[in-house]
Amino acid sequence: MERGGTYSAGDEEGTDLNKLIPDLPDGPLTQYRARASFNWKKMKAYLDPPEIIAFMNRLYNFMETDPVFQYLDGDANLEEQRYVTLLRNKKLNNAKLFADEELLMDFRKIGGCFCLTEISHGTNSRGLRTQARYDPKTESFILHTPDFEAAKCWSGNLGKTASHGLVFAQLYTPDGICQGLHCFLVPIRNPKTLVTYPGVTIVDMGHKIGLNGIDNGLMMFDHYAIPRENLLNRTGDVTPEGVYETPYKDPNKRFGASLGNLSTGRVSIIGFGVVHMKKSLAIAVRYSAVRKQFGPAEEELPVIEYPLQQWRLFPHIAATYALDNFTKAFNKLFVNFRLEMFDASDKGRIALYGQEIHALSSAGKPVSGWSAQATIQECREACGGHGYLRCAGFGYLRDDNDANCTYEGDNNVLLQQTSNWLIGVWKKRSEVSAVYPMGTVDYVDQGDHILGCTWKTSPIDEDSTNQELVRVCKDSLRWLVCWLCQRGSSEIKRHTAAGLDAFTVRNNIQVYLAHTLSLVYVKQVILSWFDESIHEAEASLQPVLYRLCALYGLTQLEKLLPQLVEGGLVQDGNTIFMVHFHIKRLCGDLLPDAVALVDVFAPPDFFIHSALGNADGMVYQHLKREIFTAPGALTRSKHWQEMSYRSPASKL
Amino acid sequence: MERGGTYSAGDEEGTDLNKLIPDLPDGPLTQYRARASFNWKKMKAYLDPPEIIAFMNRLYNFMETDPVFQYLDGDANLEEQRYVTLLRNKKLNNAKLFADEELLMDFRKIGGCFCLTEISHGTNSRGLRTQARYDPKTESFILHTPDFEAAKCWSGNLGKTASHGLVFAQLYTPDGICQGLHCFLVPIRNPKTLVTYPGVTIVDMGHKIGLNGIDNGLMMFDHYAIPRENLLNRTGDVTPEGVYETPYKDPNKRFGASLGNLSTGRVSIIGFGVVHMKKSLAIAVRYSAVRKQFGPAEEELPVIEYPLQQWRLFPHIAATYALDNFTKAFNKLFVNFRLEMFDASDKGRIALYGQEIHALSSAGKPVSGWSAQATIQECREACGGHGYLRCAGFGYLRDDNDANCTYEGDNNVLLQQTSNWLIGVWKKRSEVSAVYPMGTVDYVDQGDHILGCTWKTSPIDEDSTNQELVRVCKDSLRWLVCWLCQRGSSEIKRHTAAGLDAFTVRNNIQVYLAHTLSLVYVKQVILSWFDESIHEAEASLQPVLYRLCALYGLTQLEKLLPQLVEGGLVQDGNTIFMVHFHIKRLCGDLLPDAVALVDVFAPPDFFIHSALGNADGMVYQHLKREIFTAPGALTRSKHWQEMSYRSPASKL
Repeated sequence: MERGGTYSAGDEEGTDLNKLIPDLPDGPLTQYRARASFNWKKMKAYLDPPEIIAFMNRLYNFMETDPVFQYLDGDANLEEQRYVTLLRNKKLNNAKLFADEELLMDFRKIGGCFCLTEISHGTNSRGLRTQARYDPKTESFILHTPDFEAAKCWSGNLGKTASHGLVFAQLYTPDGICQGLHCFLVPIRNPKTLVTYPGVTIVDMGHKIGLNGIDNGLMMFDHYAIPRENLLNRTGDVTPEGVYETPYKDPNKRFGASLGNLSTGRVSIIGFGVVHMKKSLAIAVRYSAVRKQFGPAEEELPVIEYPLQQWRLFPHIAATYALDNFTKAFNKLFVNFRLEMFDASDKGRIALYGQEIHALSSAGKPVSGWSAQATIQECREACGGHGYLRCAGFGYLRDDNDANCTYEGDNNVLLQQTSNWLIGVWKKRSEVSAVYPMGTVDYVDQGDHILGCTWKTSPIDEDSTNQELVRVCKDSLRWLVCWLCQRGSSEIKRHTAAGLDAFTVRNNIQVYLAHTLSLVYVKQVILSWFDESIHEAEASLQPVLYRLCALYGLTQLEKLLPQLVEGGLVQDGNTIFMVHFHIKRLCGDLLPDAVALVDVFAPPDFFIHSALGNADGMVYQHLKREIFTAPGALTRSKHWQEMSYRSPASKL
Repeated sequence: MERGGTYSAGDEEGTDLNKLIPDLPDGPLTQYRARASFNWKKMKAYLDPPEIIAFMNRLYNFMETDPVFQYLDGDANLEEQRYVTLLRNKKLNNAKLFADEELLMDFRKIGGCFCLTEISHGTNSRGLRTQARYDPKTESFILHTPDFEAAKCWSGNLGKTASHGLVFAQLYTPDGICQGLHCFLVPIRNPKTLVTYPGVTIVDMGHKIGLNGIDNGLMMFDHYAIPRENLLNRTGDVTPEGVYETPYKDPNKRFGASLGNLSTGRVSIIGFGVVHMKKSLAIAVRYSAVRKQFGPAEEELPVIEYPLQQWRLFPHIAATYALDNFTKAFNKLFVNFRLEMFDASDKGRIALYGQEIHALSSAGKPVSGWSAQATIQECREACGGHGYLRCAGFGYLRDDNDANCTYEGDNNVLLQQTSNWLIGVWKKRSEVSAVYPMGTVDYVDQGDHILGCTWKTSPIDEDSTNQELVRVCKDSLRWLVCWLCQRGSSEIKRHTAAGLDAFTVRNNIQVYLAHTLSLVYVKQVILSWFDESIHEAEASLQPVLYRLCALYGLTQLEKLLPQLVEGGLVQDGNTIFMVHFHIKRLCGDLLPDAVALVDVFAPPDFFIHSALGNADGMVYQHLKREIFTAPGALTRSKHWQEMSYRSPASKL
């Protein structure tokens, strides 16, 4: 990836960047910004090319000044939240912000929703129970929900808005044979009146922990007929007479083909987590640079000066840079994959590419969602009491991010997809590991050599450079991927030899083994891609980027130390001391850069939406305004009479 | 502590317990309950004496059937939430549920609030800036808030309800000398009208992430006069002429004395976390025993049968039993301490007792709050998509629990109190470690002997009993407390010798050292007290309790393995394998007992308040009722016309 778009390192660049990226306001943060070791605008141009920065500027400006994008007041009810979401959606679509013609769809002829999950079947999609029985007399499919547990649910836009659903159901031919899961285009509401059609019952799922602008719904069919043509027939069709026809021989492949598109969602969700991390850290780091508490002398110190506060926050800055690079690089590769699919000259390559994307997204989504969860929580706590105010913003971030751990595949179940693939790759490593197009397992064919390595003494000392630390972290993660693959394979053999079925064997190797394997695999990719991208950054940015990269690597390694000891790579307690030593050192080294590092990725204040996280650092002024201007803040309760100390109930 | 009150093991006990503890309803959970290795009613009597169970029954029944304790609908606004909290408070106070006369106060003549924290000073209480200047002419104190940053804030009941405040301010005598922080009784609102007095500005702090029934407020004084007599003068007084008098010579001790009461809050908060853990686990474990997904054959398996699900949930059950015992034992000791204070024959003992309570509560609160946080989050995710519905209940639990990490002292700051004390104890270990009344450091005088221990090979193998595992965990935690004390002491020496001031030195030893030390110290106490309490349980309960105790010990130890390796106690990778082996084994061993273990501590359904966690296990029926009966669930949006696919904005 070409970093920084068309900018060169010359003087003109400065001018261009200054036009594109406005200066931040003066205030209590200025002194920290002045201490930064790098030019934050150049760093911004390293993260995003100029056309993206320019587009985001237009989008930000459009939203901030438009009435429907203003924040709802604190007590907005569910109906109001859904309504404003609809208005925002319409507004964005009509605004023609996107130059690309493809995105200028003829908007809102109908409204769709995607109906896969059922009340008692989410993860196990094959167990879905909605029925679509073909009736040759009427040439229609009769959709039926046998009971509440088979109701479609969690479908976004279904609750109040959609006119049509893409409904997955078990297709039964007239001979009574179930042909498996298929997708149907189902009219569910009159598009003009939004009244549901007879035979369709739709129920709004109501309040969720977060994301309440979306009307998730559930739906039950009562012998509801749709035309034969409404079967989406790419993977299988039924003739007017009721004969089933499919281009696939293996029903498993057919199922895989119809669900293949779900990777799109996961790749996007990886990016959602990164956005949550950026906002949280902008709030917590700016607040920490302003908030003072205690000190060696009369004057108190900003809390960011405390090593403990640095250790709590800075590893999350490092993770944000690492994951930001990962999500962008992965998106590019994913778009590539989609383009190659259209062309599809090499079907073998496409198949491998698809598998690798599935494996990487299935482990990448959990790592992103959980990283964001940890970041939001630590930032919330790092802001103390004021961080618990709703106007600090962390409640919304946490509530919305929480969904990322579950939708588009539960994190813990997804990780099994990745480990299954990895153990398969390990088995055939000499043949296959180098052929996967993204190169995420290209070291696995060296597995036996890698596993031969042991560190009798610590591979790092106090003088190790950050680049050396990154290399040691990569080596350790690769070693651990290989070790877990090897141990997983031998555990599978052992359990199978003992007579256990494949299902039970797979369940028995999850804890401390397959589960860990998937996480280590993707962290190795995140670290390696981050490292690679730094080579392309301009020289003035590289020192701070290597600090971040080393800190990311070491803080991931830290969690895996027990298994590195168990497996015998780490044989010396001093290695552990050195890992801790360098994590502490890097946190200290990053102090002068911390504020500038969050400035780089922080969206404008309007979008951070926190009394504590504004770019001007005027924390207490913003806080005062928020609190004083809230409706009813200064008035008596309307229930004052009952609250007062003379009411009959108080017996006075 | 006498466990199980007056019950003997005979037949009569069964009859008594059956009267006191109603049976749980039949349903999908019955099969799991039948598999339990113990009598759940006997276990309930182990956790609480009969008089407590009887009292809780009365309280539960009273609340469940009273209209003001019914849950608010999802969209209740801030004013409604505060109002219903007031009504509930009044109702409970008038209900005379408490036999103890002391609790039957003459209720609601005035309403108080506690005002310590200021906008820019929370943790550093000595830095508070509210002024109380004594004016001998009027014999009054003039309270003044110099600016917004000195506004009192976060005070519960201040926002709308309190008539009087206990306000901490810097006392200035007429000679201009600041005599330090003192507490004043300040009338702030007319008790009959709730109108604030001139000179007092009170602002409601508005929405928080959780706990919105409480009206936290902020308050500013504008040269507001109160009578001289309103100074609470136990620690210092001012004569009518304006001369300061105090029984304390050292102003530090005076400060400590006026803040000493804050331990009460922390001891209570430890219990709040345990309540959140009980509710979350009741929901997640019951749901997991009903929710089926995949399976080796046609019939799907309840997800609780999966080792990964067990590993995610069961360590939290173990932690709940451990912390439930800890909070009850600690409360008893704390009550004891308060009683001894009244008597106070041995002032030396009281001082030591107070220090130990301060240290234990300062580390116990963080461990409880963070354990609850981890438990709630894991339970939320373990319930998949349905766990994200608001009616699942996890959102409320998480939002309310979050405050526990911050109020009554920020967790990370509190931990420093504990480690400072521990390093002091270590220094004088031969004299003092055995004299602290609660015995939480009684092993420290053996520190040099303890540190002599190394495990060249694993101290546990596959056949180790649960009691042996508990012993190894206790030994490891004690070893680590000593090792961290020793290392902390030598780091302090090293930094001090290098010329650093005490403040900087203390900050430099927090990460991986003092911070860890405090956590390990309290976990050792939690584990040891749990172990001790099992000796007093009746024989039939002991096997499952030892499983829980060993699982708690091992899962705490697991997180500390790197430092046990670094310090040289663990010298063999096989020890790590064995820790993981036994954690997995114990999770499997606890499967038959898991549902019964949560039945023991689960409150009645009304109080769990979750569609997924009812005692009858009828998950889908409850879920259906919740979703179908929510207001507006089945109707069109009132904005349907704008949502429909014919509105002008859609250009159709």
